[in-house]
Amino acid sequence: MKKTGVLLSGCGFLDGSEIQEAVLTLLALDKAGVEAICLAPDIPQHHVINHCTGQVMPSENRNVLVESARISRGSIVNLDRIDTLDLDALILPGGYGVAKNLSNYASKGTSCEVHPDVRSAIQSFYHAGKPLGFICIAPVIAARVLGNESIELTIGSDTESADHIELMGAKHVDCPVYNIHISKQGKVVSTPAYMLGQSIGEVAMGIEKLVNAVVALL
Amino acid sequence: MKKTGVLLSGCGFLDGSEIQEAVLTLLALDKAGVEAICLAPDIPQHHVINHCTGQVMPSENRNVLVESARISRGSIVNLDRIDTLDLDALILPGGYGVAKNLSNYASKGTSCEVHPDVRSAIQSFYHAGKPLGFICIAPVIAARVLGNESIELTIGSDTESADHIELMGAKHVDCPVYNIHISKQGKVVSTPAYMLGQSIGEVAMGIEKLVNAVVALL
Repeated sequence: MKKTGVLLSGCGFLDGSEIQEAVLTLLALDKAGVEAICLAPDIPQHHVINHCTGQVMPSENRNVLVESARISRGSIVNLDRIDTLDLDALILPGGYGVAKNLSNYASKGTSCEVHPDVRSAIQSFYHAGKPLGFICIAPVIAARVLGNESIELTIGSDTESADHIELMGAKHVDCPVYNIHISKQGKVVSTPAYMLGQSIGEVAMGIEKLVNAVVALL
Repeated sequence: MKKTGVLLSGCGFLDGSEIQEAVLTLLALDKAGVEAICLAPDIPQHHVINHCTGQVMPSENRNVLVESARISRGSIVNLDRIDTLDLDALILPGGYGVAKNLSNYASKGTSCEVHPDVRSAIQSFYHAGKPLGFICIAPVIAARVLGNESIELTIGSDTESADHIELMGAKHVDCPVYNIHISKQGKVVSTPAYMLGQSIGEVAMGIEKLVNAVVALL
């Protein structure tokens, strides 16, 4: 059975992984007959946000690996062990955790730094010809890491993020929420998900297509 | 458009709502064309569990409403306002939060107390002829609140929980993970989900059937 890594960044769209996107990715992988292995870095969250109010909870400290394990029912691997897993593909769901924990894109924009283990995983999969899937805001990391590879990425209709993708060297491609784009260069698939989506149903359509495209590229 | 409440109990299967079951419920409701309104009580969690290790984190304190909002992307209503929402049905996903936060079934078993707002919501929906859906471990609450109504409920193959359901006055019905049971008495639907499920795909089948049965009973 093929194995796909799902790289999480916490548990909740304002300070971690977008939970619905992550679960829909796991559902689509299961339906496609591919084993999903969740991964996350063992690092502190950038901060914790109260998801009722949108405000920072200054006295709270949480860990990205520990919170991500909530989504995967406890089954998760420290990202620093990814090389031991013999994965065939890697998918990054969205959520601000991508821009706050896996990178500092939320504060640094196009000059952001990507966590070294995230950077090296994306680079090694890309250069090994293994498919990569980027959901929602995750394409900004792809642009930062693979911008000199002329890959094509979606982000939705947010013009600032689209401009950032181009400034980091990748090409932005318009794409509706229910669809995906497969880069002509490299095995890179992306979908806008909640960057555009108004309902879980349309986000699910895009994510299922992304997963099926990643699986077809295996 | 019909409106269904989805009653959450936190965010993570060991101390709150089972995240995957909650998301699959929201997905199935959206596909069925029914508006989902997430609710949770504004109470402290019983405790916080590290989902990597399964151990209690004794210094952590979290709030059920605030953590539940992670699943629903911030859109959530305090359970004490349920009467203002004019809901047509109510569904309870599973997770230990049902047995630790919405009730104290985890510690008290068949003599458990159910949070008063949860109890009154279930009773008022039942007696108004509005459909109720109970997923995974949530049927134990239904048995405790509606046990004298001779309703039929699933729990999976866990004989202790099945015995408890019968001791609380309801009837336990064997049911595989991919299926549901509709009680002959009352508009009560249940499915075992992760009480039995080995994969998100089979859990999704049961939950989608449950949602469609609840919608058909509207």
